[in-house]
Amino acid sequence: MDMPIPNAAILGGKARIVARLAAVLPADAVISDPAETRAYECDALAAYRCAPLAVVLPRTTAEVAAALRVCHELRVPVVPRGSGTSLAGGAMPTADCVVLGISRMTAVLDTDYPNRFVRVQAGRTNLAVTGAVEGEGFFYAPDPSSQLACAIAGNIAMNSGGAHCLKYGVTTNNLLGVTLVQMDGTVVEFGGPWADAGGLDLLGLVCGSEGQLGVVTEATLRILPKPEGARPVLIGFDSSEVAGACVSDIIKAGILPVAIEFMDRLLIEVCEDFAKAGYPDCEALLIIEVEGSDAEIDEQLAAIIGIARRHNPVEVRESRSEAEAKRIWLGRKSAFSAIGRLSDYMCLDGTIPVSALPLVLRRIGELGAEHGLRVGNVFHAGDGNMHPLILYDANKPGDLEICEALGAAILKLCVEVGGCLTGEHGVGIEKRDLMGVQFSGPDMEAQMRVKDVFDPGWLLNPAKVFPLEISAGRRAG
Amino acid sequence: MDMPIPNAAILGGKARIVARLAAVLPADAVISDPAETRAYECDALAAYRCAPLAVVLPRTTAEVAAALRVCHELRVPVVPRGSGTSLAGGAMPTADCVVLGISRMTAVLDTDYPNRFVRVQAGRTNLAVTGAVEGEGFFYAPDPSSQLACAIAGNIAMNSGGAHCLKYGVTTNNLLGVTLVQMDGTVVEFGGPWADAGGLDLLGLVCGSEGQLGVVTEATLRILPKPEGARPVLIGFDSSEVAGACVSDIIKAGILPVAIEFMDRLLIEVCEDFAKAGYPDCEALLIIEVEGSDAEIDEQLAAIIGIARRHNPVEVRESRSEAEAKRIWLGRKSAFSAIGRLSDYMCLDGTIPVSALPLVLRRIGELGAEHGLRVGNVFHAGDGNMHPLILYDANKPGDLEICEALGAAILKLCVEVGGCLTGEHGVGIEKRDLMGVQFSGPDMEAQMRVKDVFDPGWLLNPAKVFPLEISAGRRAG
Repeated sequence: MDMPIPNAAILGGKARIVARLAAVLPADAVISDPAETRAYECDALAAYRCAPLAVVLPRTTAEVAAALRVCHELRVPVVPRGSGTSLAGGAMPTADCVVLGISRMTAVLDTDYPNRFVRVQAGRTNLAVTGAVEGEGFFYAPDPSSQLACAIAGNIAMNSGGAHCLKYGVTTNNLLGVTLVQMDGTVVEFGGPWADAGGLDLLGLVCGSEGQLGVVTEATLRILPKPEGARPVLIGFDSSEVAGACVSDIIKAGILPVAIEFMDRLLIEVCEDFAKAGYPDCEALLIIEVEGSDAEIDEQLAAIIGIARRHNPVEVRESRSEAEAKRIWLGRKSAFSAIGRLSDYMCLDGTIPVSALPLVLRRIGELGAEHGLRVGNVFHAGDGNMHPLILYDANKPGDLEICEALGAAILKLCVEVGGCLTGEHGVGIEKRDLMGVQFSGPDMEAQMRVKDVFDPGWLLNPAKVFPLEISAGRRAG
Repeated sequence: MDMPIPNAAILGGKARIVARLAAVLPADAVISDPAETRAYECDALAAYRCAPLAVVLPRTTAEVAAALRVCHELRVPVVPRGSGTSLAGGAMPTADCVVLGISRMTAVLDTDYPNRFVRVQAGRTNLAVTGAVEGEGFFYAPDPSSQLACAIAGNIAMNSGGAHCLKYGVTTNNLLGVTLVQMDGTVVEFGGPWADAGGLDLLGLVCGSEGQLGVVTEATLRILPKPEGARPVLIGFDSSEVAGACVSDIIKAGILPVAIEFMDRLLIEVCEDFAKAGYPDCEALLIIEVEGSDAEIDEQLAAIIGIARRHNPVEVRESRSEAEAKRIWLGRKSAFSAIGRLSDYMCLDGTIPVSALPLVLRRIGELGAEHGLRVGNVFHAGDGNMHPLILYDANKPGDLEICEALGAAILKLCVEVGGCLTGEHGVGIEKRDLMGVQFSGPDMEAQMRVKDVFDPGWLLNPAKVFPLEISAGRRAG
């Protein structure tokens, strides 16, 4: 993966840049010792690493604005960072950048139960948002697997989803407002605790913008009342294609469970090993969860199991207790960590029409075989958001490049069948050079001209989202 | 309401402009006879009227692009128009503009039931989208009262909602993709049949942009399976404030009906007169609808009625048949037509936190009395989207100005309590000079700089959304 050539003047001016930052921030908010900045050299896409020039860790919107004003004046690139859990390299530094981390900004600023929203500093973790409101019976719906660690700011940057987004939508459906600091330090408010507000919807634009438009420091989030109950069912099949066809039939029938998760044999085995969830021994597994009162749950599960039976499942098993349900979900949510114990891997994020699941699962297997790499599948099947995990050996010369080529082939396949490059992980550095597969020249130009408005110098989160040669040209111009 | 001074050169060049348009469009697609263009002099905000220079009625995206290229070259303003049902003057012409109407673009381009979307030309009416898919048991969720007439393009322009959006969200939650023609004729595709796509979310930006960024010619829309059943209940109260408090309690309890609609005595009477819906004789009425199986409906209604009983309702009545349910909704959806038979009126669209309903309903009554005008209330109470209807006499000198002042006072009140200017009708000409009440200078500047990107000459839908003196300056600059 190519990265831009660092600006020598910035590298040489490090002492001055750090001094200027230290002048506007508390002493403990500026990190420049290479031994310490190294902790920020990558995110969860650990195949690519580069330590930044410096790191700042502000505590308030005003401190973020002060840091950005300095960087803007000195024309130093800035890489915003939440908790560094991006799987697409969304928080990957360049050697000449300042990483602006908001992990210290975790306060709850307002909770309004009658109007069902909470306002937090954007460094707060996803799970801690629910933690702040669950005492009153509420929760925050988007639930990425990394929810224990990932920051709301990162969720907003990537428009994160999660297993339960089939019913509740992704971040953009649950985000009501943000405070955003622009690269020049200007603080703006987009959205608010209402559904729509007149004028242009810059809130929707910011959600999923991967730190290209500004740094989100505060967020107003929709909270929902917890459902009365929920129950997962495990349905095992003797092939991935049949499991895919079953998902397509459930969706076609108009049933909307809270979650339909898919795992193939490789993932079933590693997750079972990790979580002792009691997954059946089979080629492909669906975890389907429904919500409501006991009667509602029974009714929905009966309809789902009826459809599944037509696909000759090897096992159908309802969870019988809350403890069992927890283990089932622990296994699923630990999939990436579990596979990481086994091998280096790269996680893709293509999204396809649900009806194309059987075809795409078969083609992924074939493409893996052609490239000589193993591919595991664990993903949000109900909305077609796939997560092929390509296993490779980082210590074997050339293996990463083969992995990249296979990843590109799989993502092109997703676009060919009418899908898209990324469902929830974002483009980051991983998929930036594939943007042309999905977007025409005018489509991408429209996006870049909007980026021009917010960040004319292209200083924010460089080398991400747009093809490198295009963004490098834009930055120079 | 001030409108910009027409450009004399454009008015004088009418013959040439019409000839250039006629050269690129079919003969029947260009209207320039003043007797015919007059039909386009206003939309549903009929208090303000101005016939355009000419009207074009293309049938394809290519024809839209051809018309826009001509107008772009000749620097003629363009007012996009769906079905002309805007209540905020969103399709109001200027004397020097070409109205680009897409009412002839009504085709269904694709229906995909397994993946639950439909693609239509954007001139298709809202109800005809459901009409195209209901045979297979699906529907399109947003349901503005004007759904029989209003075009999907207008729904997208205004991010329209409707009575059932409490559960299903507004247009932006049901819109998957658009084909947009930019002012210079460039055709771009934003979004597609997936939840999120990488890059900047220009789809979200276009939704609600009131024709400021381009002309939407095609749209991909989410369709949903029809619920098993639905049942409305009528709950009458002896004051608007108590009804508002009941709504607040239902929402606070975490119950999410499909719709919670509110009517005060004035509206109950005129709607009853119009639809014979059997509304009770009371000061304030809630129409609450729940969906699902019979058992689910019974369970939800029991919880709702339990809360309502604590507010001493004067009547609680469940609909006993589908015919009765239809009449109940016909009355509600005919509210604007029904009040139009009684008086001239202006319909506001402020949105407030649900917990502020009792306070705001009381203050609206007081403000109406202070201004000497009657105000009726009929609105989507569940999401706080109010529609105060100010009655005035268009033939009484000065009455419209008093109505405008009262409208401004009510909208300022909505913003003061933590709400916003518009929930679903858009800013249009009606609220443009109030934008500063809601948005700070930098907030509005960010919006206008995005507008600059798509329409640098500010030719698209002039004199709307942004305060007139600001947009006029931008256009001149």
